Parts: sequence; C-alpha cells; structure tokens
Amino acid sequence: MQLQQLFSPSVQHTLDLIGIFVFAISGALLAVRKNFDVFGIAVLAEVTALGGGLFRDLVIGAVPPAAFTDLGYFVTPLLAALVVFFLHPHVERIQAAVLVFDAAGLGLFCVSGTMKAYSYGLGLTASATLGLATAVGGGVLRDVLANEVPSLLRWDRDLYAVPAIVGSAMVVLCIRYDILTPLTSGFAALTAFVLRLLAMRLHWRAPRAWNRRSTVTEE
Amino acid sequence: MQLQQLFSPSVQHTLDLIGIFVFAISGALLAVRKNFDVFGIAVLAEVTALGGGLFRDLVIGAVPPAAFTDLGYFVTPLLAALVVFFLHPHVERIQAAVLVFDAAGLGLFCVSGTMKAYSYGLGLTASATLGLATAVGGGVLRDVLANEVPSLLRWDRDLYAVPAIVGSAMVVLCIRYDILTPLTSGFAALTAFVLRLLAMRLHWRAPRAWNRRSTVTEE
Amino acid sequence: MQLQQLFSPSVQHTLDLIGIFVFAISGALLAVRKNFDVFGIAVLAEVTALGGGLFRDLVIGAVPPAAFTDLGYFVTPLLAALVVFFLHPHVERIQAAVLVFDAAGLGLFCVSGTMKAYSYGLGLTASATLGLATAVGGGVLRDVLANEVPSLLRWDRDLYAVPAIVGSAMVVLCIRYDILTPLTSGFAALTAFVLRLLAMRLHWRAPRAWNRRSTVTEE
Repeated sequence: MQLQQLFSPSVQHTLDLIGIFVFAISGALLAVRKNFDVFGIAVLAEVTALGGGLFRDLVIGAVPPAAFTDLGYFVTPLLAALVVFFLHPHVERIQAAVLVFDAAGLGLFCVSGTMKAYSYGLGLTASATLGLATAVGGGVLRDVLANEVPSLLRWDRDLYAVPAIVGSAMVVLCIRYDILTPLTSGFAALTAFVLRLLAMRLHWRAPRAWNRRSTVTEE
Repeated sequence: MQLQQLFSPSVQHTLDLIGIFVFAISGALLAVRKNFDVFGIAVLAEVTALGGGLFRDLVIGAVPPAAFTDLGYFVTPLLAALVVFFLHPHVERIQAAVLVFDAAGLGLFCVSGTMKAYSYGLGLTASATLGLATAVGGGVLRDVLANEVPSLLRWDRDLYAVPAIVGSAMVVLCIRYDILTPLTSGFAALTAFVLRLLAMRLHWRAPRAWNRRSTVTEE
Repeated sequence: MQLQQLFSPSVQHTLDLIGIFVFAISGALLAVRKNFDVFGIAVLAEVTALGGGLFRDLVIGAVPPAAFTDLGYFVTPLLAALVVFFLHPHVERIQAAVLVFDAAGLGLFCVSGTMKAYSYGLGLTASATLGLATAVGGGVLRDVLANEVPSLLRWDRDLYAVPAIVGSAMVVLCIRYDILTPLTSGFAALTAFVLRLLAMRLHWRAPRAWNRRSTVTEE
C-alpha cells in the first residue's frame, strides 16, 4: 500500500510546506527573542522546521533525508526567517495566528510522520511514536539550541504532546482496521489540530508527579 | 561469530530490559526534580533509557534501531515513568538503591554495546568507544534536555565514565585474544559495576586540568 | 568523478587531521573553562572535532562514519585534550593562534564536507548546506554539551557561518561549472579562512532583526 500517496503528491507536498513554514516561524521568533543575529534566526528556523522529520528519516533509514533532497523543504524556512527578520513586530502581534498555524503543523506532521514510518516497515506503536517525534522533535531541538528547557517538557505549558499522540494513534488505528483513507487521515490531523486549539484556549495542563510537596518551578 | 548470542537470547533480552528500566528511573526522577509534567517524565525516561543504544544503532547502520523494533524496549521506560509518577517520594528515599541499579545498567550496557558494535564490523577501539557511548549516552541526553551540564562532564561527580571504559576495554581485549565467553563478558560487566560502586562509595574523582588557579565551579 | 581524491589521499588525510586537532583544542579549552574533569575535557574535544563530520555521515548514509573507522580521527582529539590538560595556561596565552587554527579548520571542513556530500549524490544546495554543517556542527554540539548558547547563533560574536557559507558555495559553483580542481578547492578553503580572519580582526557582525527596540542581551 503506497501510504505516502494517500493524498495526491502535490497536495501532500503543499501540506508539508505549510507545516514547515509555520514551525519555522516559531523558531525564528524565539531566535529574535534570544537576540540572535540573522544567521541564528535562519538556523533556528531550519532546525525547528526540519529537525523532527530529519530525526524520523535517520531512524527509518531514509537517507539522505527529505530535508536534504527537496529544495523546497530547505528554502521554505529561509523565507520564514526573512519574514520574521523584517516584520517581527507584526508577526509577534499576530502571535495568536502563529500559534494556530503551529497547531496546524502539529496535526499535519504527526499524521504524515506516522504514515511515513509505517511505510518503511515499522510496527504500529513505533510508527505512532515516530509520528509524535516528527511533530514535536523540531520544537525540542529549537529549545535545546536556544539553551532553554524544552517547552514540551514543562508542566506550566498547555498540552502539546497529547494532541499529537491522539492524532498518531488515530492513524495507526485506521491502519490496523484498514480504513486509512485521505478522509480518515485528514480527520486525524484535524482532531490533533482542534485538540491543540482547545488545550490553548482552555489552558489544559498535564499533572505533575503525585505527592509533590513543593510547587515552586525550578528552572 | 554470533557475538550477540553469547548469552541465550532470552537472558540477554532480560538483562537489556533491566538496564533500560533502571536508566529510565534515573531519567524520570530528574524530570520530577525539574518539575516536569507526566509527559515530560515519560519523555525523559524514554530518552535516558534508549538514547545511548539509539545513537549506537544509527552509527553502525542498524536501522530501524532496536528501540523502535522491540516493543518491550519502548514500554519498559513507560512503566518506570509510572512507578516514579506515583511513588516518587519512596523512589527518592531509595535513591541509594536506584544508584546501584544504575551502576548495573552501566555495566550491562557498556558490555552489550561493545559487542553489538563489533558484530557490525567496527574495529576494536571503535567498538569500545561505542560501548562507552551506549552506556553514558542516555544520561548525557537526559541532562541536555533538562538544560543541565551533563553530570558525566562535571569534575564534582564521582567517576562514571571510567568504569564503563574499563568494561568496554575488557570486552575488546577478550575479543582480541579470542576468549570472549558468557563468563568473561559477564566478568567485564561485573567489573564495571563494582568499579562504579566503589567510585560512589569512595568518592573517586577525576583530576581537572593542571595549574588551574581558580577552583570556583562555573555553571 | 572521485571528488574525494581531489587531493592525494595522504594530503587530504593530513589536512583532515589538522582540522580535527584545532577544533579539538577549542573544545578542550571550553571544557577547562567550565571546570570539567579530564574525561569531560576528552569528551568535549572528541565531540567538537568529530561532531560535524559525524552528522554529515549519518545524513548521507556513510555508516559507520569516518569518525569510527579511522583510528587517527579518534586519537587526534585525545592528543589535543592531553595538550590542553597539561599546558592549558600556555594554550590560553596563545589563544590568538588557536583562533587562527580554528579558522583554518573551518575552511578545510566546509570544503571537504561539501565535496563528500556531493560525492554521495546530494544536490548542490544540499551539499553546500552539509558542508556548512560539517564545519560548524562540532562547535554547536560543544556549546550545547557545555550548556551554553551556541556562539554560532549569538549576535555579539564575530561572523563565523558566513565564511563557511562562502567556502561551501564556491565549491558547488566550481562543481556546477566543472572547474573543481585541487587549486580551486584550495582557493575556496583559503577564502573561507581569510574571511574568518578578517571577521575576527574587523569584528564583523551580522545584523539582528529590524525594529528591535531593546538591545539588552537575554541569556
């Protein structure tokens, strides 16, 4: 089954580029906040946008990774970096819009990452895990390079991993029951997207360890 | 020579899972101390337990890595995360026991990592180096994700790398002189384990650079 | 075309070892400044010297990477670590010389990294990007392990990426127009080297994002 071809190649490619663009925006904005120069902005945009997919491709043995074979994947983060470089006060003002796009990227990447991992022969659990890693890996690399605690791990951030886990799990369930179609995978991406929007709107948080006596955030 | 089969597969697998479990405990405990939420605890448990082996497998071209093909490798750290999540005051109280298990993991991983690297065609020095990387890599990733200086590198921590280096070196010497058996490799793992215990008990430290005039720890 | 053989193998190998040595010196010196012990010094020397090439080899699928197949690549950083361990006040005093050697390493690695990536079938843009990553990747890993913001990304450091970008770009232009010879590739390495020296001498800096109202460095 050519899982990669669930969507027409051009539709798939366009969705990928949109996800890459919005992730790159989030990386470039952090670089501006950290006072990095224009090259730091470009590097952080590239790493945020392509890091998750790069990790997935190395793990499944898809070398050279798509990040290095598709020129569009490489150029798109540079465009995002340029946008932030010249317009960042406006981009920051529309931070809410950026977060919505980032949620869209999360939904798209967890679904496409899961499907690509499965098409390379990984099991269902491993595919879902790699789909999650594809969706959140770039953000973790972004925070590590910026010398910050990854926001993925912090308890005082709205849920980020859970929407991606749900999306990835829906895809492997569809594969398991042989009902993976453009419609069902699109629905999985939409579910992850909406869950992330709700998590932000309603400030859903995950619990910390039981019996934790101090609530002081250590950082 | 089927180096991987030195122990019966089921014995080898059980030893691996024990090593994975204790490393995962150390990752989950750090996550609790850093005030991460339940997903942060799970992520840090997975990364600590599987990071070293993942690096080794990517380097020797064993893709997809064992971490993604063996469900037990993936589930074990989640169990460790659950244990810490619900019982962490008790787990912390038995911190000494955790350190003993971690030392056992160090001994097991440096030996199994060296043997796996050699069985994939690497030279003796490279195999020992990768064995060391397998044993300490997960802990380094744990500390990097938690935004701390890797305790592996700090002078004010008891020796950690040296026991693993000794264990890895013993394995390659056994290979070199063709005396690698379950007994000798078990003895190498035991030696690394005991050396680590002694390093903790006697606070063995490695020297810092000569002529260092200031002793202030910079951090 | 056997791009790897542009120089005679022994000349190429010697140039590689020189680049590895000087990068390792910079890693070992940072380890001393961070108060790491002798193993921390050795680890940071290895990572700084071999990290960029390791990343490149994983991406192009050249496994096991050269860092693990060539004993000289592994031993050279250890020698650099020993030199720093015993002589670091003198090495620090000749910091200017170290920076000159580091600039030479930058020039050599961006050129050899680009050529190796191209010889493994990557496109011109991807090859230049990987050449850049080869040259700067070790330094980024060094700073991440030392828990510092990568100096590559900071606006208050003299230009480092641009000389490597120029060197890599010159190599792919030479490939594109079929004029890659030992002479032209040597000229590309020399250009990157001289540009880096000029950047240090004249304190060339890259701009930060437009309209940034605050100039306070956040760290």
